[in-house]
Amino acid sequence: MSSVLQDLYSKIKERKSANPEISYSARLFERGTNHICQKVGEEAVETVISALSGTKQNLIEESADLVYHLLVLWADAEIEPEIIWDELLRRGGQSGVEEKSQRSNNK
Amino acid sequence: MSSVLQDLYSKIKERKSANPEISYSARLFERGTNHICQKVGEEAVETVISALSGTKQNLIEESADLVYHLLVLWADAEIEPEIIWDELLRRGGQSGVEEKSQRSNNK
Amino acid sequence: MSSVLQDLYSKIKERKSANPEISYSARLFERGTNHICQKVGEEAVETVISALSGTKQNLIEESADLVYHLLVLWADAEIEPEIIWDELLRRGGQSGVEEKSQRSNNK
Amino acid sequence: MSSVLQDLYSKIKERKSANPEISYSARLFERGTNHICQKVGEEAVETVISALSGTKQNLIEESADLVYHLLVLWADAEIEPEIIWDELLRRGGQSGVEEKSQRSNNK
Repeated sequence: MSSVLQDLYSKIKERKSANPEISYSARLFERGTNHICQKVGEEAVETVISALSGTKQNLIEESADLVYHLLVLWADAEIEPEIIWDELLRRGGQSGVEEKSQRSNNK
Repeated sequence: MSSVLQDLYSKIKERKSANPEISYSARLFERGTNHICQKVGEEAVETVISALSGTKQNLIEESADLVYHLLVLWADAEIEPEIIWDELLRRGGQSGVEEKSQRSNNK
Repeated sequence: MSSVLQDLYSKIKERKSANPEISYSARLFERGTNHICQKVGEEAVETVISALSGTKQNLIEESADLVYHLLVLWADAEIEPEIIWDELLRRGGQSGVEEKSQRSNNK
Repeated sequence: MSSVLQDLYSKIKERKSANPEISYSARLFERGTNHICQKVGEEAVETVISALSGTKQNLIEESADLVYHLLVLWADAEIEPEIIWDELLRRGGQSGVEEKSQRSNNK
């Protein structure tokens, strides 16, 4: 179940109009897309570092940070998470996740 | 609903024992954690680039790529997505996503 | 001595007008800033991965890849390497590399 | 001339035994390889973001930050910058920077 992600996304979206002094999400929106992108990049790097030389618990925490900031990026771009799930489903519907493979070969 | 993510994660996990010649996921597991980390990092960079100078459709596709490779990384580390959702829920349960804010201030 | 970097930068700049079919640098310029940024991001991730779980030789090779693509990015933006060295010198002139520290504290 | 880089590298190396309370470089060494890697990753992301949506001056400053942290990473791994220049020279000596092209095609 990831109504968790859907619920969190909804909360994040509400923070677009919240007070930046009391909401971290509101602060991210206030600082803008560049800053949100920077956070997504940073958390991805930390996730990778945790996977390579951290504990399982580190990886869980950094992954949660990454997912959270990714939801903020989607909210910033007005992309509902379902659009992303649909994209994943569309690819998977074909033949497992093999369409991805075809795309990668063209890179 | 993100039973989509849960279902995709289950499929990915099954591919751990699949033939790398016919499954992209199996190929990633065969190449190992370093390579999976590299893909997560690459897709994060592409997500950021799409957000800054791509179309909305680019951002959707790159985000889907990132989520997919993140699921592979979790499967590689034997972390069920629910563990990540629980971590997000635990933080959110406190006061929105404000615990995150406290953590960031300590960085 | 890093007339090496200066020389390499000069060669890279010449490739702006070279045939993309025979020059990798020309191919990067042809594909544009987004693609060059993607390569810089990828090589940085690979450098980090090498530092954490590769051999010293891996780290040398990935670092060289990163420096090369960084020179391409600078050429793309028409920034001479000396401008970067001057910036580093300007900071260092103060008190070692301590200005950097002050800047970081403000982040 | 990049005796600038060589000089900066030498200074950074000296900071390995300096007081972390007064030297930013010493603080990085004290926090260790994981943290240095995180900084390299962060600065690379910021460099990319500057190239895509910042001013030329932003790109210069972020590039300088990236180069500085890269020098720290090399010092941490005990790799002299000349080793990296030699690697670049070795590739370039062949046919411009075309060996890089051959390597990339194998990825």
